[in-house]
Amino acid sequence: MDDRPIGIFDSGVGGLTSINAFSEVLPNESIVYFGDTARAPYGNKSPRTVRAFSREIADFLVKQGAKILVAACNTSSSIALDHIRKEHPDIPVIGVIKPCAAKIAAECTDENSIGVIATPVTVDSRAYETEIRLLAPKFNVHAQACPAFVPIIESGAFRTPAMDAAISHSLDDFIRNYAVDTLVLGCTHYPLIRPNIEKLYPQLRIIDPSVALAEEAKRLLTEKDMLASDWQGTRTFYASDMSSKFLGIIEMLGINGDYVLKQHVL
Amino acid sequence: MDDRPIGIFDSGVGGLTSINAFSEVLPNESIVYFGDTARAPYGNKSPRTVRAFSREIADFLVKQGAKILVAACNTSSSIALDHIRKEHPDIPVIGVIKPCAAKIAAECTDENSIGVIATPVTVDSRAYETEIRLLAPKFNVHAQACPAFVPIIESGAFRTPAMDAAISHSLDDFIRNYAVDTLVLGCTHYPLIRPNIEKLYPQLRIIDPSVALAEEAKRLLTEKDMLASDWQGTRTFYASDMSSKFLGIIEMLGINGDYVLKQHVL
Repeated sequence: MDDRPIGIFDSGVGGLTSINAFSEVLPNESIVYFGDTARAPYGNKSPRTVRAFSREIADFLVKQGAKILVAACNTSSSIALDHIRKEHPDIPVIGVIKPCAAKIAAECTDENSIGVIATPVTVDSRAYETEIRLLAPKFNVHAQACPAFVPIIESGAFRTPAMDAAISHSLDDFIRNYAVDTLVLGCTHYPLIRPNIEKLYPQLRIIDPSVALAEEAKRLLTEKDMLASDWQGTRTFYASDMSSKFLGIIEMLGINGDYVLKQHVL
Repeated sequence: MDDRPIGIFDSGVGGLTSINAFSEVLPNESIVYFGDTARAPYGNKSPRTVRAFSREIADFLVKQGAKILVAACNTSSSIALDHIRKEHPDIPVIGVIKPCAAKIAAECTDENSIGVIATPVTVDSRAYETEIRLLAPKFNVHAQACPAFVPIIESGAFRTPAMDAAISHSLDDFIRNYAVDTLVLGCTHYPLIRPNIEKLYPQLRIIDPSVALAEEAKRLLTEKDMLASDWQGTRTFYASDMSSKFLGIIEMLGINGDYVLKQHVL
């Protein structure tokens, strides 16, 4: 038994899309979340900068007593986890990509054409292709960078024709050329535009990695006997910039249950 | 005579659009530029965060020997200049909004309908309306926030139909409803999408504030006898994240003459 919180982080508000999955899969756990809204977005920045920011966040969450570090952020997950593990060898560190790859390997076949959409840093890392092919070497996997998506989502303008135009511009050719039938939302912001994507491409099976991530956290905590005791945990969401935009997106996400919001500048 | 450099800053790459104007108006001056690319964009973040970041940059530029601080960034100019002046009382501090307002007051009449497009923070500050109306109380001035523009530009996707769709979504009604005939690019990133705007609204007179800003710097340095001596100055561009995207936008801007690029993390 271990009643310390699960530490979850993201470049900004995107990781909050996985909070409901964690609350469902691990209802007794306390959560401390950090969204780096003052420095978001990460996906168009250099790997060196993304690693430096990710390590600062990990340090902060460990100081908040986190028993496990969960990178909800795909960009951080694709390039920063080993650096965080080196600095916190006693704390389990998991990212969103590996559990999602396992889910895909279990649910798809080599008849499927799997498309992964993500930020430029994540796509350049080839992390999704690598993890999926480790488990299923013959799978058809293609990744597409969508540099405009997160910026438009973070600006709050994602329920607009401009968002749809950005999606069509980035995905029409990609989906047609590779005959994609399964689309992985390889960025925590993308669940917010899932309705736009479903409207434009109703034929696609869409995979949101957050449930697989929460289940991986549960598996690991169970294995190490680190689950919380039988009580409802607390949830604290830190942001480095507590802007009205951040509060608006929290509102829109419809997070179930109680939580506390705090600003913390790194 | 004062051969110390002019310190120019911006939230990211946008301020570089004013470099050619400075080189033309003040060819002998050295320039030290700081673009906060690791934490860009600013325009959707809270005023408190924008002020804290702007003050850190001002401190850095003063340490680099800047004889004057120039906020090319409209977002910083709209809310952070007084805070910077308080911390650096011996150094002149100018922003992009006031000189632009003077230019508009000189070139327009109250028959014109002036539209200002800017980031949400700049629009909320009402800085353009306030400065213009101080000089010309009867002018028709309307401001429109365009939260998606900078993010799409910074992502590099601004020569795409998605950018045009974002512009139409933000400006079609605004320009029609107010019969706008003069459009102020109230954000240093917007000169990069000037071709898109000119294509969509060929009837508009477009005002880019960077020349007025450079001329205001010249006026102030002349008045204080702080112009550089008669030699070609050096130019150093610092960025807090030296990403390939940053280098690509520098390339695209077609900056004339030599310059040195350096990464500096604040």
